[in-house]
Amino acid sequence: MKLNVVKIGGNVIDNSENLHRFLKDFAALDGFKILVHGGGKAATQLSATLGIETKMVDGRRITDIESLRVVTMVYAGLINKNIVAALQAVGCNAIGLTGADGNFIVAKKRPVKTIDYGFVGDIDETSINPANIAKLLEAGFVPVFSAITHDGAGQLLNTNADTIASALAVALAKLYDTTLIYCFEKKGVLKDIDDETSLITDIDPITYEDLKKQNIIAGGMLPKLDNAFRAIASGVTSVIIGQADELGHLKHNKTFGTRLSTGI
Amino acid sequence: MKLNVVKIGGNVIDNSENLHRFLKDFAALDGFKILVHGGGKAATQLSATLGIETKMVDGRRITDIESLRVVTMVYAGLINKNIVAALQAVGCNAIGLTGADGNFIVAKKRPVKTIDYGFVGDIDETSINPANIAKLLEAGFVPVFSAITHDGAGQLLNTNADTIASALAVALAKLYDTTLIYCFEKKGVLKDIDDETSLITDIDPITYEDLKKQNIIAGGMLPKLDNAFRAIASGVTSVIIGQADELGHLKHNKTFGTRLSTGI
Repeated sequence: MKLNVVKIGGNVIDNSENLHRFLKDFAALDGFKILVHGGGKAATQLSATLGIETKMVDGRRITDIESLRVVTMVYAGLINKNIVAALQAVGCNAIGLTGADGNFIVAKKRPVKTIDYGFVGDIDETSINPANIAKLLEAGFVPVFSAITHDGAGQLLNTNADTIASALAVALAKLYDTTLIYCFEKKGVLKDIDDETSLITDIDPITYEDLKKQNIIAGGMLPKLDNAFRAIASGVTSVIIGQADELGHLKHNKTFGTRLSTGI
Repeated sequence: MKLNVVKIGGNVIDNSENLHRFLKDFAALDGFKILVHGGGKAATQLSATLGIETKMVDGRRITDIESLRVVTMVYAGLINKNIVAALQAVGCNAIGLTGADGNFIVAKKRPVKTIDYGFVGDIDETSINPANIAKLLEAGFVPVFSAITHDGAGQLLNTNADTIASALAVALAKLYDTTLIYCFEKKGVLKDIDDETSLITDIDPITYEDLKKQNIIAGGMLPKLDNAFRAIASGVTSVIIGQADELGHLKHNKTFGTRLSTGI
């Protein structure tokens, strides 16, 4: 059985029209599927309105107890449930979840070293409970995960949505032929970040090393791709990094974005 | 198979110590079970902080679009997911839901007559999708419902938690031997509202008529009991109205609160 694990970024969520087009394409995908969504601007906006300072270190949000309340409300409540209602409206039997629900994802609170990230949960594929998630899939539900997990001892934790998507894909690759799809605002991995026509359509581990040596892939894309190749090395069939607008191509077996694979 | 549908009121949710004791007792109950929770003060507090006026007519909240955002965040996010994490911590495989998830509860937006209640959803037992909920129960999950539903066309709606509990109980009574339990801060239905020792332990339809004639039951308790007797007439085995602190008695087959039944 095929499984698509689709991650959608905040930029798509912030645009209602784009989001609804994307959700319609997601609903139309055949086989088992899981959606993982990030947060968008709503959490930062609500924090600002409530007078809670948003603290970032190296692009990561410091989640104090007040910020945790905000992301729990916005990610697991507002965004997650509106996505579920929109999917149901187009006939997709979505069920909105955090890692606490069904004990699906048990994270470890990030240890305090030089920086205290607060209520941030770290996970890998061993944090996932694939048997419980499989029960939902086999019963006909489409899980929609927000980026909230728990520690199993009653504490909710804020967890990176990209990591949730790759951990889910790796854990479920043991049960299903799994493709991991990161949807964002760009066409995919670009040779020139300012030129949408410079799309790299396929990368395997050998061409990846080349692209890094030539400095074509650098900066923020590096951890994303490192992570993707780790997922492939752990059993995920392929990883697609592409534009949310083009998810519909998948339904018609057309390629889109950048496809990462073993190259074998 | 036995099913307990337990509704917990806002007063219990607002006290963390009481809530955790209650959740431990709920987790210990045998058989299938469903928790339905109300809102507590958090939604009103958040609305106030955000400068959103809370408008009530006859004890009912007017839910404009801003208020709907708040209750979706607070009920379906903050309260629901913290309850789920707390239940998971004591070994109960909770899964937190709204009526949008799994298309479990499809409400009708309340028609505008003299008053526009805004995004309020009305339901009865025909709004429930018992087959989908049964799938979760049979797979070993414990559904935890917040008081948010949807209209099936993408719109979330605010719905009374007491009504959700009774509609779930009636719809699932066709599949299971179902008891509906309303937990609140009082010992149960009292002859004298200021005297906790004046508990009425059993009411059947005949004694209910007597109690109404003698004006012993009046005011806010009337719609609650009318609703409870309707549930019994529709197949629910019994309805218990009692104190959240005493839910543990149920585990040991001891009675608590006021038990409503057919009297037959």
